[in-house]
Amino acid sequence: MIFRSPIKHCKNCGSAVIYRIPDDGDTKERAVCPACGTIHYENPLNVVGTVPHLGDRVLLCKRNIEPRWGKWTLPAGFMELGETTAEGAARETDEEAGAQFEMEDLFTVMNVARVGQVHLFYRARLLSDQFNPGHETIEARLFNEADIPWDEIAFKTVKETLQRYFADRRTGQYPVHNIDIV
Amino acid sequence: MIFRSPIKHCKNCGSAVIYRIPDDGDTKERAVCPACGTIHYENPLNVVGTVPHLGDRVLLCKRNIEPRWGKWTLPAGFMELGETTAEGAARETDEEAGAQFEMEDLFTVMNVARVGQVHLFYRARLLSDQFNPGHETIEARLFNEADIPWDEIAFKTVKETLQRYFADRRTGQYPVHNIDIV
Repeated sequence: MIFRSPIKHCKNCGSAVIYRIPDDGDTKERAVCPACGTIHYENPLNVVGTVPHLGDRVLLCKRNIEPRWGKWTLPAGFMELGETTAEGAARETDEEAGAQFEMEDLFTVMNVARVGQVHLFYRARLLSDQFNPGHETIEARLFNEADIPWDEIAFKTVKETLQRYFADRRTGQYPVHNIDIV
Repeated sequence: MIFRSPIKHCKNCGSAVIYRIPDDGDTKERAVCPACGTIHYENPLNVVGTVPHLGDRVLLCKRNIEPRWGKWTLPAGFMELGETTAEGAARETDEEAGAQFEMEDLFTVMNVARVGQVHLFYRARLLSDQFNPGHETIEARLFNEADIPWDEIAFKTVKETLQRYFADRRTGQYPVHNIDIV
């Protein structure tokens, strides 16, 4: 999780901001610049990733970065400007696992309101069992459902997505799951 | 659409930032503070809203704000920190239409990469045909499919959502639609 640092200075002119409700009909306190009037909005961030699968197995990455160093995750990261949710998910899968894959449909949309995030995962069909993980990953490995290290999963959204993926595999139907993580 | 103003000064110390690729393994240019080292990330924003329906009709709001003043929209707005996508969608429906409703399932997830936004709409069942719109709305009115002012719809994501809603009504099935708006 990234916790954002507070806004102390105006991004436009550098003056110290004050937190107050703007005069434009807004109802929430924002960082407002008393010098140039700039209003600074802070909004939730999207995290995008994939469930890369090959036959009965799913690809997990062992994290080489904090938070949760050494824990296992699905490839995922912050969505960037200029890309779609699917493009971001594909980019992260390439960066973190160096996998060859074909993108499939949106699978989970999960709110983590406590940290101001929305996590979106797509299914992705792996085209190879060879991986070339980047510097953020210690190891990329395929797991059968029975071998998933459930107690060593880095994030709750990853665990929830994996659980629903294996449940849906039994039916062959993969509706989008919209879940709130408390 | 809100186009974000560029970051010129550091939010932490007010110094002038420079745009460069940070030294932490990142691959994209960010606004980096040469004085205190703060890295400023800019990410896509979520817009959340509803398709409020009553029998055969859908609720639209005539916009009293720019952009697209006087055009018709579904109730929607920027997701705020501390709320889920569904909570944000409900809040906007209350603020813009003053409607009584029961939230239903996630319906559309639309990428508008050109402006760095993701739009998410939920279906919502109206409990009354009486509305009490806020200052952002000139008029809130129910429309049958045949009467929808298609040429006067404010945003492409609203038009796409309405088209899919009326199509799915015929089948009674409302799967989540994940769409890229070009």
